[in-house]
Amino acid sequence: MDAVPEKWLPHVLAQVNDYDVKVANVEGEFSEHRHADTDEFFLVLAGRLRLELPDGNVELGPHEVFTVPRGTLHKPVAEPGTRILMFEPRGTVNTGDGNEGTTGVVLP
Amino acid sequence: MDAVPEKWLPHVLAQVNDYDVKVANVEGEFSEHRHADTDEFFLVLAGRLRLELPDGNVELGPHEVFTVPRGTLHKPVAEPGTRILMFEPRGTVNTGDGNEGTTGVVLP
Repeated sequence: MDAVPEKWLPHVLAQVNDYDVKVANVEGEFSEHRHADTDEFFLVLAGRLRLELPDGNVELGPHEVFTVPRGTLHKPVAEPGTRILMFEPRGTVNTGDGNEGTTGVVLP
Repeated sequence: MDAVPEKWLPHVLAQVNDYDVKVANVEGEFSEHRHADTDEFFLVLAGRLRLELPDGNVELGPHEVFTVPRGTLHKPVAEPGTRILMFEPRGTVNTGDGNEGTTGVVLP
């Protein structure tokens, strides 16, 4: 699991107005987190991503998409070899509003 | 060429804040146009897209991306079987600021 954090590091691929288009090679579990001020869009380019949400899990294969609504806790979990694309307002931190690397963040 | 316009009809796949994520099956030539108020982001999911721009052409294959800056004329041309994803502010019209279906639109 030591290599996982680097696996989730997003790279800005393009910019659209004040949004960034980011890609990341992902694998294993990422911190559960939420973004109070923005939705977060996921597109799977390759592999398989599971978004664990309070109301259930969303499973995404290649070219499947999901928008996590603002304020919604979500824990991304990916199979090896997964590559995802995200749209987010510039400056959005991928660990959300909680402490980096903490799981189960629930903000007041 | 009669079937081409329907080929370029975008469908909203997801929403992210006040942006739409759209997909379209595209083939052949689309109107040259520009958007005065917004960048336009293209991601090729399958096939091949050429964006003809004043300074030259951009050729995109699967999972390649390009952002057309606001105000920049562009004419999309696609091979048969091409599928693209776009990211735009909600309400953006795909023919831009010119007359629908007109090619070579140059606004004052």
